[in-house]
Amino acid sequence: MANSTVRSTFDPARVVTSLRELAARTGGPEGSRRLCWTPEWLEARALLRESLSTLPVEVDVDEAGNLWAYLRGERPDTLVVGSHLDSVPKGGWLDGALGVMAGLELLRSLAAEGTPPVTVALVDWADEEGARFSRSLFGSAAVMGTLDVEILRGLSDKEGNKLVDILPQHGVDIDRLDGARTRLRDVKAYVEVHIEQGPVLESLGKGICTVTGTKGIERERLVFRGQAAHAGTMPMPMRRDSFRAASRFALAVAEIGDRHDGVTTVGAVACKPGVVTAVAGETTITLDMRHIDADELATMLAESRAAAEAAAEAEGCTVEWEHIFRIAPMPFHPALLEAARASVREVEGHDVELPSGALHDASEMARSVPTVMIFSSSTNGLSHTKEEDTPVDHLHMSADAFDRTCRRAIDAIVAGRV
Amino acid sequence: MANSTVRSTFDPARVVTSLRELAARTGGPEGSRRLCWTPEWLEARALLRESLSTLPVEVDVDEAGNLWAYLRGERPDTLVVGSHLDSVPKGGWLDGALGVMAGLELLRSLAAEGTPPVTVALVDWADEEGARFSRSLFGSAAVMGTLDVEILRGLSDKEGNKLVDILPQHGVDIDRLDGARTRLRDVKAYVEVHIEQGPVLESLGKGICTVTGTKGIERERLVFRGQAAHAGTMPMPMRRDSFRAASRFALAVAEIGDRHDGVTTVGAVACKPGVVTAVAGETTITLDMRHIDADELATMLAESRAAAEAAAEAEGCTVEWEHIFRIAPMPFHPALLEAARASVREVEGHDVELPSGALHDASEMARSVPTVMIFSSSTNGLSHTKEEDTPVDHLHMSADAFDRTCRRAIDAIVAGRV
Repeated sequence: MANSTVRSTFDPARVVTSLRELAARTGGPEGSRRLCWTPEWLEARALLRESLSTLPVEVDVDEAGNLWAYLRGERPDTLVVGSHLDSVPKGGWLDGALGVMAGLELLRSLAAEGTPPVTVALVDWADEEGARFSRSLFGSAAVMGTLDVEILRGLSDKEGNKLVDILPQHGVDIDRLDGARTRLRDVKAYVEVHIEQGPVLESLGKGICTVTGTKGIERERLVFRGQAAHAGTMPMPMRRDSFRAASRFALAVAEIGDRHDGVTTVGAVACKPGVVTAVAGETTITLDMRHIDADELATMLAESRAAAEAAAEAEGCTVEWEHIFRIAPMPFHPALLEAARASVREVEGHDVELPSGALHDASEMARSVPTVMIFSSSTNGLSHTKEEDTPVDHLHMSADAFDRTCRRAIDAIVAGRV
Repeated sequence: MANSTVRSTFDPARVVTSLRELAARTGGPEGSRRLCWTPEWLEARALLRESLSTLPVEVDVDEAGNLWAYLRGERPDTLVVGSHLDSVPKGGWLDGALGVMAGLELLRSLAAEGTPPVTVALVDWADEEGARFSRSLFGSAAVMGTLDVEILRGLSDKEGNKLVDILPQHGVDIDRLDGARTRLRDVKAYVEVHIEQGPVLESLGKGICTVTGTKGIERERLVFRGQAAHAGTMPMPMRRDSFRAASRFALAVAEIGDRHDGVTTVGAVACKPGVVTAVAGETTITLDMRHIDADELATMLAESRAAAEAAAEAEGCTVEWEHIFRIAPMPFHPALLEAARASVREVEGHDVELPSGALHDASEMARSVPTVMIFSSSTNGLSHTKEEDTPVDHLHMSADAFDRTCRRAIDAIVAGRV
């Protein structure tokens, strides 16, 4: 327990109650229905606003559609906590909702305990998932000033609705997103609790852990080109089979990820002409590579380029790379990592820590704000599906560790350590 | 030159002239436009009918839409020659047209030389390509009685037109296809000349060769199943990556084809969920395997099943096979192979022979009729594209060897050797 506060009135059970209430209103047999910029997402926010309405907080929505609730403290220095209520279609009940409901409980407990030494703000980030318009971390990137408005103008959903036409229905003007950047003023720390969305904690028999940062990502498209040919008339030794080149690469790049303790994924593949009776003249694959260490990630990329060249050459093909996306690893803040470690130790009695393989709004915040995250386990490692779940005691522990980390973060702000 | 005939008046140059005339009327800058059951295909047939109209032949169309031209001989025993005028969209100028125009020249020359000892029939098979309704060898399969009428009823083209609605426009009644089977009565031999559609003859520096038969085909769909997972949160050692299993298989099956001197092709691939950020939980591939020897083909299939099991197991996946299509190897007739070999030796002075990797109407005919084929080279191995071509001297040689083979086939019929 942190030193400078009275005994916390934070109740982890109330976090789970809020999550179940949310699931009852915006979930169903097929999973969560909180796709951003839809009426069901607004319904989730209405529930959050109802809960906030009983607290001494100021609630408003910024220029990027993020919902903020400020509990004013003794000084303007601010701790921000939160996550996102939006979900993928047929998503899980926890995902971003855990962090928002834990933040709500933090405000509730702090308000009950008097005026906190610093201001504490809960944020419900808009469109973390990017599930409808393919731009994730929308709200947090807007606050950080890393959105490319020209790219946003080109985005449409599957029905052909343009993002720029949908946003005004939610009071968001694409030309005024920068206004949200003022929200960073006085912000000294950011804390987020989230489910792991992977199988590691469960495999270790642990319920929670400290998150050391979010992994950097290199995302590329590779086009292997050989020669399309008749499957019956082109002898094996004379073929230039682009799918064989892609297959060699897929196996080589898996070995690279494994050897560097990173992750590498070939998740999408398309062959041309793509028929049973023809050797594939062209094969396009996607590559996603992640590592918590920037140097290791750069090495993995360099080795992958060499592996792609070797795979292409072995099959008489060529290979071309098209860059899709890149984000650097975001290591979290040393003082907040200490706070999280101490809290996890108190709650579950161990020092397990993991990098996050998934991006989170914390990845954006960590660019310029001292940040840390807590993970709870994910049952069977599943997420973004109705099967997403976490044992209740793990949820309780993660909320507890989140509370303790936040109170330590408040101490660190007061002490000028962040 | 065969023994029993007068010196042949067959003129290979006239075959090329006919092909150029056909290309002028039904080709263009994008290639041939003779898709079966279309007005442009009828235009090609109109040209053929004009040429036949000056000869002493009986022309009619059978119940499956095949066009026949009979030059009556001294006996009803019949040699059938031909191929198909229909082409794929944007196809080449030679493909099936070479065999039809060479057959036309055979009728022209035989008619000029008097009454042949046996009846000689030219056939222009309907819908060899199956490019519109995905059922190749339509006309020859109808004559052989191997069409499945129930499957035909379900076929539609890309615009949704049903085959059963299009056929009546060409006088074809799907319930009366069997009538075409009477065309086999008195048929003693079938000879077809075709371009190789592959690169082997060119690579050997040869213009023509004897074709030993058409390869057997095993066509399968393989579904590798693992576990879809987040590309960032699922550690490499815990993955069950179906695409990696498919990649292992693709490389193993290429080795199998190579080692058995057959061909194996993975030409189409689809991953689910098929996005850059997810490990593929399910990967479906197509497999096409061909060999001229039935035992070797069976061995290749057995080895492929073992390779698929091993590839799946290595990645913690399962694999399921779905049968698509099977045809046995069709070795050609010994007496006619001798006729073709002697003719190729006379014309180009060598004994090169190849199995056909592609199916032809000859594959259907060979089921019950003594059959042989002659190949000409294909420039760069290309076919089914406007770039399809063959050096004119190779076309001349192939037509010449076809003529000599046909005259030897007539001798063989007379001598009762076929």
